[in-house]
Amino acid sequence: MDLRELIEKRSREARENYLPHISIDCVVFGFHEASLKVLLPKVKGQDKWALPGGFIGKEEELHAAAGRILKERTGAENIYLQQFKVFAGLNRSEGFFKDFPEGLWYGERFISVGFYALVDYTHVAPVVDELSEACEWVTVDNLPHMIMDHRHILDKALITLRRQLNYKPIGYNLLPEEFTMPELQKLYEVILGKTLNRGNFYRKMTGYDILDKQEESRKGGAHKAPNLYKFNLDKYKAALKDGFKEGW
Amino acid sequence: MDLRELIEKRSREARENYLPHISIDCVVFGFHEASLKVLLPKVKGQDKWALPGGFIGKEEELHAAAGRILKERTGAENIYLQQFKVFAGLNRSEGFFKDFPEGLWYGERFISVGFYALVDYTHVAPVVDELSEACEWVTVDNLPHMIMDHRHILDKALITLRRQLNYKPIGYNLLPEEFTMPELQKLYEVILGKTLNRGNFYRKMTGYDILDKQEESRKGGAHKAPNLYKFNLDKYKAALKDGFKEGW
Repeated sequence: MDLRELIEKRSREARENYLPHISIDCVVFGFHEASLKVLLPKVKGQDKWALPGGFIGKEEELHAAAGRILKERTGAENIYLQQFKVFAGLNRSEGFFKDFPEGLWYGERFISVGFYALVDYTHVAPVVDELSEACEWVTVDNLPHMIMDHRHILDKALITLRRQLNYKPIGYNLLPEEFTMPELQKLYEVILGKTLNRGNFYRKMTGYDILDKQEESRKGGAHKAPNLYKFNLDKYKAALKDGFKEGW
Repeated sequence: MDLRELIEKRSREARENYLPHISIDCVVFGFHEASLKVLLPKVKGQDKWALPGGFIGKEEELHAAAGRILKERTGAENIYLQQFKVFAGLNRSEGFFKDFPEGLWYGERFISVGFYALVDYTHVAPVVDELSEACEWVTVDNLPHMIMDHRHILDKALITLRRQLNYKPIGYNLLPEEFTMPELQKLYEVILGKTLNRGNFYRKMTGYDILDKQEESRKGGAHKAPNLYKFNLDKYKAALKDGFKEGW
């Protein structure tokens, strides 16, 4: 079935099952090889990419809907999800459905709740759903052409991530369980979009008292094995409650 | 017309004009006599208060809808409005419409976009609309009983205000054009919910270089006339762009 047939078929089913005029779009962030990435489906038969999105069941909680959509459209499961902004512009779809028949459910006005998702990159095996021809991790500083207002939503998610770095468990959700101090610093640098002084970063991070140094250091490099850390979840959560006092 | 008749009448009209299942609720903050206040309508014929809320026209922009709703329901106009969170719980209305007829538009599931509004208290002349029997400024630390999940929405707005103090023009929108340093400090204290050291506050605020000291000081007190300040809008906006680096 091509994209057009699929959307027409899904439009008929959607009217039965979902709330009209309200959608969800997700920006899924992962961190790998020192860069921040987003997980994007490629639209079937088009040279454009999209945010994984979908609709809210008539009796479904909003957060549960976002989790279900992500699982169906990307394969990502049990991940940290945070709503961050509503996108409601009258021309959001930018003519995407203009060649479709009148009265198409997908073609109506949709107000979309933007969620960002944070995942441990190593835990996701991307799935290609029937609306897509690929689903890939893309580096945020080299994004492909995206449909509708999806690039705008992605940009707003990035700004939000930057602002929330001091009071949401962003590091915890993007890094593997154990990590080195340079890896943590690199994550902060790519989110903030600037380099940080290594000594200052180490001093501040240690001062927050949210990391547990592990007894074993990382094996196998040519250099001296770097120390490994884990977040101390209790202390981390307590610190996030008030937000970290200093900026970066 | 009593509340029940009004809601039934409005339900019939609403289906024609507004998007179904999506609403807006506003938390209007003002600052007066050293306390933070919210502007609340009192529900007609009930001993309960509500957030001013309403619906989105089928072809109306979200932000414009919030502005229109506030004007209609409270009289407040041309004010700073910021969406902050979506409230979508399945039982949000908490049985408020349970004695109304089946199929009532107001009684359907609504996902509500929360906005906070910041106003110069002295510029608002509250208006009582037909759904209300009063519309008053209430101090945030002495709130009355509220309908549905409105208290929850209000609490979330307060938390948001606290977090955004360093990168949204919150002081500018809540204070009169000219103010003293102790007034500005008091505003920060009531939003943050804690007292601040006077010397540190003065030093940090001056360090940000966002205030213009006025030539005239305030007339008429028994004490030495305090200095008056205005925000320097250009410098203030530039500083907010990156957020103030230090916490309070």
